[in-house]
Amino acid sequence: MKPFMDKDFLLSTETARKLFHEYAEHVPIIDYHCHINPQEIAEDRRFENITQVWLGGDHYKWRLMRANGVDEYYITGNADDREKFQKWSETLAKAIGNPLYHWSHLELQRYFGYTGYLNGDTAEEVWQLCNAKLQQDDMTVRNIIRRSNVKLICTTDDPADSLEWHKMIAEDQSFDVKVLPAWRPDKAMNLEKPGYTEYIRTLSAASGVKIDSFRTLKEALSVRMDYFAGLGCCVSDHALEYIMYAPASEDEVEKVFARSLNGESISRGEEMIFKTAFMQDVAREYHRRNWVMQLHYGCKRDNHTRMYGQLGPDTGYDCINNYAPSDQTADFLNSLAVSDELPKTILYSLNPNDNEAICSVLGCFQGTEAAGKIQQGSAWWFNDHKTGMTAQMVSLANLGLLSNFVGMLTDSRSFLSYTRHEYFRRILCDLIGGWVENGEYPEDYGTLREIVCGISYENALKYFGFDL
Amino acid sequence: MKPFMDKDFLLSTETARKLFHEYAEHVPIIDYHCHINPQEIAEDRRFENITQVWLGGDHYKWRLMRANGVDEYYITGNADDREKFQKWSETLAKAIGNPLYHWSHLELQRYFGYTGYLNGDTAEEVWQLCNAKLQQDDMTVRNIIRRSNVKLICTTDDPADSLEWHKMIAEDQSFDVKVLPAWRPDKAMNLEKPGYTEYIRTLSAASGVKIDSFRTLKEALSVRMDYFAGLGCCVSDHALEYIMYAPASEDEVEKVFARSLNGESISRGEEMIFKTAFMQDVAREYHRRNWVMQLHYGCKRDNHTRMYGQLGPDTGYDCINNYAPSDQTADFLNSLAVSDELPKTILYSLNPNDNEAICSVLGCFQGTEAAGKIQQGSAWWFNDHKTGMTAQMVSLANLGLLSNFVGMLTDSRSFLSYTRHEYFRRILCDLIGGWVENGEYPEDYGTLREIVCGISYENALKYFGFDL
Amino acid sequence: MKPFMDKDFLLSTETARKLFHEYAEHVPIIDYHCHINPQEIAEDRRFENITQVWLGGDHYKWRLMRANGVDEYYITGNADDREKFQKWSETLAKAIGNPLYHWSHLELQRYFGYTGYLNGDTAEEVWQLCNAKLQQDDMTVRNIIRRSNVKLICTTDDPADSLEWHKMIAEDQSFDVKVLPAWRPDKAMNLEKPGYTEYIRTLSAASGVKIDSFRTLKEALSVRMDYFAGLGCCVSDHALEYIMYAPASEDEVEKVFARSLNGESISRGEEMIFKTAFMQDVAREYHRRNWVMQLHYGCKRDNHTRMYGQLGPDTGYDCINNYAPSDQTADFLNSLAVSDELPKTILYSLNPNDNEAICSVLGCFQGTEAAGKIQQGSAWWFNDHKTGMTAQMVSLANLGLLSNFVGMLTDSRSFLSYTRHEYFRRILCDLIGGWVENGEYPEDYGTLREIVCGISYENALKYFGFDL
Repeated sequence: MKPFMDKDFLLSTETARKLFHEYAEHVPIIDYHCHINPQEIAEDRRFENITQVWLGGDHYKWRLMRANGVDEYYITGNADDREKFQKWSETLAKAIGNPLYHWSHLELQRYFGYTGYLNGDTAEEVWQLCNAKLQQDDMTVRNIIRRSNVKLICTTDDPADSLEWHKMIAEDQSFDVKVLPAWRPDKAMNLEKPGYTEYIRTLSAASGVKIDSFRTLKEALSVRMDYFAGLGCCVSDHALEYIMYAPASEDEVEKVFARSLNGESISRGEEMIFKTAFMQDVAREYHRRNWVMQLHYGCKRDNHTRMYGQLGPDTGYDCINNYAPSDQTADFLNSLAVSDELPKTILYSLNPNDNEAICSVLGCFQGTEAAGKIQQGSAWWFNDHKTGMTAQMVSLANLGLLSNFVGMLTDSRSFLSYTRHEYFRRILCDLIGGWVENGEYPEDYGTLREIVCGISYENALKYFGFDL
Repeated sequence: MKPFMDKDFLLSTETARKLFHEYAEHVPIIDYHCHINPQEIAEDRRFENITQVWLGGDHYKWRLMRANGVDEYYITGNADDREKFQKWSETLAKAIGNPLYHWSHLELQRYFGYTGYLNGDTAEEVWQLCNAKLQQDDMTVRNIIRRSNVKLICTTDDPADSLEWHKMIAEDQSFDVKVLPAWRPDKAMNLEKPGYTEYIRTLSAASGVKIDSFRTLKEALSVRMDYFAGLGCCVSDHALEYIMYAPASEDEVEKVFARSLNGESISRGEEMIFKTAFMQDVAREYHRRNWVMQLHYGCKRDNHTRMYGQLGPDTGYDCINNYAPSDQTADFLNSLAVSDELPKTILYSLNPNDNEAICSVLGCFQGTEAAGKIQQGSAWWFNDHKTGMTAQMVSLANLGLLSNFVGMLTDSRSFLSYTRHEYFRRILCDLIGGWVENGEYPEDYGTLREIVCGISYENALKYFGFDL
Repeated sequence: MKPFMDKDFLLSTETARKLFHEYAEHVPIIDYHCHINPQEIAEDRRFENITQVWLGGDHYKWRLMRANGVDEYYITGNADDREKFQKWSETLAKAIGNPLYHWSHLELQRYFGYTGYLNGDTAEEVWQLCNAKLQQDDMTVRNIIRRSNVKLICTTDDPADSLEWHKMIAEDQSFDVKVLPAWRPDKAMNLEKPGYTEYIRTLSAASGVKIDSFRTLKEALSVRMDYFAGLGCCVSDHALEYIMYAPASEDEVEKVFARSLNGESISRGEEMIFKTAFMQDVAREYHRRNWVMQLHYGCKRDNHTRMYGQLGPDTGYDCINNYAPSDQTADFLNSLAVSDELPKTILYSLNPNDNEAICSVLGCFQGTEAAGKIQQGSAWWFNDHKTGMTAQMVSLANLGLLSNFVGMLTDSRSFLSYTRHEYFRRILCDLIGGWVENGEYPEDYGTLREIVCGISYENALKYFGFDL
């Protein structure tokens, strides 16, 4: 029996332990995709208590509490922070096999020095301990980032965003971790959503381009990309239902956009025509700028209408959408490759069944711009656990070159979640160590170190072209 | 090497063995979904020979025999029972890795004391042994149930059923196992099927409500639900192609129903409109009564037209239907949640690829009525084996709270199949024991006992609200 | 730690080692589906260097090199063979977890006696060694086949092919391995493709039947099937997008075909109507002749238009198509079973998610013509690795009779790929050995030998009815 989450957690062989403790554990973190608020870095926020940190906005935890029958009063309601923490602690004890069980205890160990386990009985002890620690200087946002060995962070930002906090952080000599914006133009694409024309006005104002056509929309986006690039941005990100391919003439696209601006209703077919054209345009811009295009898809959002009315988006009411036709994914990428305008691309599907189809698509569109120009992203969101990560890496290894994988990102809203990189690296080392111990790959530590450190750190550095 | 199916069958770690032998093995069985015939309990049937028990109606076994090239004469034809048993025994020897290999040998061990293995050579010995045992008093239907430590059984019953056998069993003081009806109104929903109008007349007669509209159909169903509730029913069940969501106005639904009653043809779109409205109505009724709604879907039935003509339904000619759009599942549940009329619900898909999508949908619609109000059902039918059960529980653990899972049911037509609960519990204990041994969950036997006994027994008791 | 790919490679238990070394290792190979060129057998080709053998036409390897960012110049371009080998060697070192890593080293071990591992540093040594060996007499095509213990090969041939090389091989007394044609009429079915009418003229000429209707097309195919049968053909093969079922009247089908011959455009619906009728017709012919029907589907081909223009088909630009509705698969098979004209059939999907659906369909259409009349084919192409093979066999075992499986085929264009049978047998023995060691199947070596040798060799012999 291995002790509970000790230093060899998830490392089941000698080789796995060696790979982790000698290599993976020591390389820095590049967190190239997350949802943290740059303002909190700029202001170097300090948290009052562990409920603020853990339950302030983490819809993963909210969902688990709801699955335990906990009343919303103790989740997003007016219960006091200690009560909420109690309910969370009782829920967590039931989360056997869930990644939150491991994430939470990794955070308790690494940031708070707590090596017990959290449940209803230990909640008070943990509450006291964590809250005391949170008052220490080493637990401000910046110090958490520093002690986590993070070298670079990409946030997620709207094209109309002023990026004022990014500027402040960049100008602040006292903080040497890079905090770069990442370009996420979903609002500019989703013309079927309420508030679209209002958003277009905001984008017009931010770009200084009067947007009255698809042509001028593209112009405005290009202006803003230049602005983002000026602050070091080289990564984009998109949330798509699926990767669609509904090609149409420039004229047709303009007509759909015009009708949308006029407040007319848009059919589902027209929506897909517009979005295809939109994605092709921005992809070409990314290619021109050598930016990376991240495509996150396979999610159906805001499923519980009543709760959406109360709490808004990103509150734990999303699910996997299992419609993601691989033929359209391939055709979309081909439509860019045909003129050699396909940018470096990372595909993330929320449906783990898409692993093999994605890996088979990757192989059709590689290029010389980078080793692994087209990548499958690390197991995402509902798949961000041992099963999901292992499945994604095994699929990638079976169908391509795992060695070129750009590895982990937190995708998180929390400053304590850098332990997820450790979690990922343990799983990676266990997988590779297992192959070596099983005689499936030579015990050649020179190459193994390159592979492990590559996936943990070096590959991302090279792939994105970050300047550290 | 572990001995063949000994007391530690499927228990690969010390912790797994402890969890099973100290906890899981001893708690009673609640079989909340099966297809046994209540008449056979009421009459306390005794079987003449093992072929009657095993091959009388078990289409799982028939399929395996067909996969072995066995002529139908020896399966459902006129061969004598000994000949059929010989063909089955020869087939079973080839079923390495198949759950029927384990189910059959568990039944031979637990009910007949046979610890060898069945094949063409041992068939005669097993035939003699089993048939002799079947004459003993402890092998009547009621005694099999008693010695299996079963406390409660839910059968599967049509709304028009008189439930006379259930009444007889309930009134019989000599048998203290609860045998409750479960409500399965498929025939009332499937208006595209031949014989629908005839069925509606039957339902009219049973309910005393003249059904000449969708409104009166709903009324008749409500009357019958009350009748079922009077006999202790608190569980419903549906066989759906997929969970559809095609909302329409009351008027449109009435028109479709009227056309159906007039014998006019119904389009596929109209069928889905009607079924959506039907399901919404009964779901609201379940919510009002605090019943559980079970949705079984992902099955395409009666695929072999020629054999259907000879043998009818449920004879081994069904397959997985891989069309089950998760967006419609989510939208259907939301349409009930929006007015807070979503009942406790258990989702079962026949397609194992749906595991993660289902678990992600569950998380959107939980509530305070129960811990785990919306559940994924145990691995069903073609997935009812070590691989399928493990995949379902791992997915549930990754995406929600495995601890709240209501666990196993036999879904069986056979009185010997209670060993499938044992099979499930062994797999459960092996999974959880493995996590503990691997340092992924604390070795805290208080909590582990709660989890294991909960999933094996206690959770179902609380969730369904059975009164034992 | 197990040594790198030693004699017990992939055999993790004593029982697995026994099953492999005492049984599976020694039975011959029947390679019932591959893409080797019969001319090279007839002429007993000798290769000049290892790049010719490995990189001359192997798009699996080309894809990996592209995934490593290698320029096309070193893949299919004008770089010299030594340079290409260098790039491949450097790529291979990064292919941890990829089947090509194992295939390549198995080939180096078995055919070249090299037991090190190939990478950029060892490339020169391996290059010299292999090229020297390739000049030896035991490395001509025929001698490679002989020393690989191959008894029978089925190639892949167009109905219009003269089969001249097959005749030459058959008449050559000095070579006693059977090399049979296999019937692959894709070009006769794909009426949506450019060049279709031209192909129909070729087929007319080859068959001596003037094809001016669907009726005469069927007649021409029947003539050519007789010709193929005369040379020992008893296996057909089809590449389908998915197994479609769009039934129509004979008249409708004739109209679609007539429009196609007239050069008119065909809608997607008409295409499916024609293909359904085509497949039904040839299936009936196969049934009449006791041929096996192989259906390969789930592939989207030639996705990179620009590279297709440069390199043509089968150059590494194909991917998994994840649209394969199981209802149409079942309905198509039923349309033949209804009149008892369903031939022995093997289903291969490129999407590993289809495993369970396929296995559930198989079970509906078995018959007495063979044990396992309807089969799932071995894990194909993108799934041809430990993960994919294990998943396919576990699914087959869970849902049917693994013991009746006809096992492995190379599907390869290379004469060194017979080691993939060894790879498969190791994985098979490891799977079965694991079950036995785990107490899930009796340690009964009589039966285990039958199962292992059956799947490795005997089942295919019986199933196809080959005369050896």
